[in-house]
Amino acid sequence: MVVFRAVCACLLRTRRGIMKPMHAQPLYQRLAEYYRAAIQSGALPPAARIPSVRSMVRTHQVSLSTALQVCRRLEDDGLVEARPRSGYFVRRPAAPRLAPATEPDMRAAADPARYVGIHDRVSNFVALCEQHDLSINFALAAAEPGAYPHHALRQAMSRALRLNPELLTSRAPAQGAPQLRAVLARRAWDCGIRAKPEDIVVTHGCIEALNLALRAVARPGDTIAVESPTYFGLLQILESLGLRALEIPTSPQRGLSVEALEHALHTQPAIRAVVVVPNLQNPLGCVMPDDDKQRLLEVCVAHGIALIEDDTYGALADDGPQRAIKHWDEAGNVIYCSSLHKTLAPGMRLGWIMGGRWHARIDMLKFAQSRPNEAAGQLAAAAYMGTKAFDRHLLRLRGQLTRQRQHAADTIAREFPPGTRLSLPPGGMLLWVELPQQVSGTAVFEAALSAGIRVAPGAMFSNSGRYDHYLRLSCAEPDPRKAEQAIARLAAIVISLQK
Amino acid sequence: MVVFRAVCACLLRTRRGIMKPMHAQPLYQRLAEYYRAAIQSGALPPAARIPSVRSMVRTHQVSLSTALQVCRRLEDDGLVEARPRSGYFVRRPAAPRLAPATEPDMRAAADPARYVGIHDRVSNFVALCEQHDLSINFALAAAEPGAYPHHALRQAMSRALRLNPELLTSRAPAQGAPQLRAVLARRAWDCGIRAKPEDIVVTHGCIEALNLALRAVARPGDTIAVESPTYFGLLQILESLGLRALEIPTSPQRGLSVEALEHALHTQPAIRAVVVVPNLQNPLGCVMPDDDKQRLLEVCVAHGIALIEDDTYGALADDGPQRAIKHWDEAGNVIYCSSLHKTLAPGMRLGWIMGGRWHARIDMLKFAQSRPNEAAGQLAAAAYMGTKAFDRHLLRLRGQLTRQRQHAADTIAREFPPGTRLSLPPGGMLLWVELPQQVSGTAVFEAALSAGIRVAPGAMFSNSGRYDHYLRLSCAEPDPRKAEQAIARLAAIVISLQK
Repeated sequence: MVVFRAVCACLLRTRRGIMKPMHAQPLYQRLAEYYRAAIQSGALPPAARIPSVRSMVRTHQVSLSTALQVCRRLEDDGLVEARPRSGYFVRRPAAPRLAPATEPDMRAAADPARYVGIHDRVSNFVALCEQHDLSINFALAAAEPGAYPHHALRQAMSRALRLNPELLTSRAPAQGAPQLRAVLARRAWDCGIRAKPEDIVVTHGCIEALNLALRAVARPGDTIAVESPTYFGLLQILESLGLRALEIPTSPQRGLSVEALEHALHTQPAIRAVVVVPNLQNPLGCVMPDDDKQRLLEVCVAHGIALIEDDTYGALADDGPQRAIKHWDEAGNVIYCSSLHKTLAPGMRLGWIMGGRWHARIDMLKFAQSRPNEAAGQLAAAAYMGTKAFDRHLLRLRGQLTRQRQHAADTIAREFPPGTRLSLPPGGMLLWVELPQQVSGTAVFEAALSAGIRVAPGAMFSNSGRYDHYLRLSCAEPDPRKAEQAIARLAAIVISLQK
Repeated sequence: MVVFRAVCACLLRTRRGIMKPMHAQPLYQRLAEYYRAAIQSGALPPAARIPSVRSMVRTHQVSLSTALQVCRRLEDDGLVEARPRSGYFVRRPAAPRLAPATEPDMRAAADPARYVGIHDRVSNFVALCEQHDLSINFALAAAEPGAYPHHALRQAMSRALRLNPELLTSRAPAQGAPQLRAVLARRAWDCGIRAKPEDIVVTHGCIEALNLALRAVARPGDTIAVESPTYFGLLQILESLGLRALEIPTSPQRGLSVEALEHALHTQPAIRAVVVVPNLQNPLGCVMPDDDKQRLLEVCVAHGIALIEDDTYGALADDGPQRAIKHWDEAGNVIYCSSLHKTLAPGMRLGWIMGGRWHARIDMLKFAQSRPNEAAGQLAAAAYMGTKAFDRHLLRLRGQLTRQRQHAADTIAREFPPGTRLSLPPGGMLLWVELPQQVSGTAVFEAALSAGIRVAPGAMFSNSGRYDHYLRLSCAEPDPRKAEQAIARLAAIVISLQK
């Protein structure tokens, strides 16, 4: 009852402010979101009874059927469970049932810099994928297309074309459309970045931004420190630019080991930059604590190397945009890269870069590499992102991913064999599953393809060979039954490979 | 009267075939196009009398007012002139009034490979341009936005979005949209290329295609042979990739000197590729004779270097698409790059590349550099290019550019001081104007900016310092009076700088 009262008081106090920006959602959804927030924040802890249907009716002045819908929604989302004649209770999260992923030795020396081989692994991966029919894709690091506001974006695009009749036949504005740069700069403040539109260059996705950042600070033969494991796309960029990847131990809970990086900087003189995904790291899903972010920047400044920050996933954290390392950057030592690929539109290759003290060189390299992005998509994205609809979309998307992630983790905990480990990340759509030591993720990947299931084998996320018994699974599948069946099938493959 | 009869006979013989694909144009325009073709082909030579209004009425079974419109259109376009009580006569082309641009010594040794400095020149150019209000842009190498089918493209884009509701939120297809690759492959046959859709990778404009081609065949420190003068964008790409540009003498009439290239290949071992624009070279506007194209390919094959062919302008030749060097390429030694930027839509950054034997590496580099292009624009372009409307557009665009180019050349011949030289190119929108030796193109550029006129100074098209007394002028301005005034103003600046 103490919890109940606290929640009601909180609700009455903030109802207005919370409900206001969400008018587009039905009332029951708004209320369900509210209770979700209470559960996720711990105000309603596991096993607590949530307010009864009758008290919801009274407190929120809603109909009985709305209150019932709220409870059913929370139940469908796996947040509460009904107990006969007792009401609804907050479910205990399933994650603790699996041990967290193994921590690396954070003081270990970095892996010797290597830079070849990933192209072959990626090409092999793509070629194998193309040979098999696909029924479910756990390898794609984006939500399903329907989870993004395709209707509103289409409208925004048509409107942009109507308002600017010669948009498709006029030269695109340098550095990107002013409208998009303005809205990106405004939204960067949510991550603590004091950005101005002129600090931003629009790019073809975060991938182009990372290419430009690396080309601006390094030359072929140089070494770049990266997280271990890290996104295979980054390893591929490094290989294609003739750069060496030096893998720094990275914790599934706290991210990159600043200590290990510092050690590497003392022993390896050719390191020019470190690339880090501090928020919802790919594939680990971890968020670096603020102290570590600050310390990392200090180390980079002290050693005169660039800090390239990839913040593609940060806005998908359960509790909203995370603070970027760029927040603490006084001297322009951080090159910040991000994109709308995961948060708004996987089909529009819109990324951006804030180059800090390398801004002019990056601007020149972008011009020489691909010229400014076409304007139409930029105007559509800017129009949509300039409204509250974008905030509502992010809220919905985060909620959907939380549900799907939790559900996938529950299913893995239930179906996968003992010895499987998993750290549930605080946002995004990626799960980094540690298999029992003797099971090869690559063997699972190959066997799963025959069952129409695509996963990303751990071996793609490092040149060290250290992650072969890992899988990266995306929780983008919105149909819980389909996801459950596919995970059970995967588990059967893992078990069969154990024998 | 001989001419008159020949034209009439020709008209009657071919009327049906010629008129058919042009139904979207008003009748008078179709007839005007017809007489234009007769004039340009020489069937109606300079000073010949064109058929009288009355005979047009009779021959074509059109109204008197239509026939009058035809004559007025031809007069407006500078093709014919009225002589009182005598009728309309074909004007003598103005080009011969200017001596053709100076031929280089085609057997001269290539310029020592250099590769620095262009960034500064381009940055300086851009910075200066941005400081001045612009009233007319002679520096932009594209037609005006209204010369492209913006309305049809907008419709095609909206339709693509309607038919594929989740297009903007779904992952883009690898290598480019199959629809666009199919239509590009089909249209490549017009340039004599036996292309299949799977040979093509869609890129962010020809600029990205050139970047990928160079990255595929060369490493930093290598030398790339280029035309002299050449497009500053290419020099900038080379500089940004750490490559050296070796400038090969290039004729304003016949293009690259194959002889000089061969000599360079014997004396300089580090040459990895030659980049050539065989059709409507930028800035010269020349088209290489077929013999030279073939011979160039033979030389490249014999020396084991890649031939990178940039065919951005070829479809804008007065007599339609020119044969690509790729036509003779049996062994995959040609990397063919092109774009829709000049021909269809300057605001859509759609280019493509056919990588020959480097296809797999280029495909990988494209993936690592920027991932596949977004699909929406590709589907719109494919839909439009799949219809006859695209052919009609190209016909119109070529006609418009011919008129504007001729008009600009006439005005230059009339207004510029003696010593000015110019070779009128057989298509496109670029004029390479050779100023009297003592006049600096850079000084003209700077003075013109103050008058709101933007031109491209010759110094940007080479690292050799050999073209400072040149200007590249674009004839994109559709208003003849405005173009005329601006050219007269430029001429006054040139004359003032002579003193």
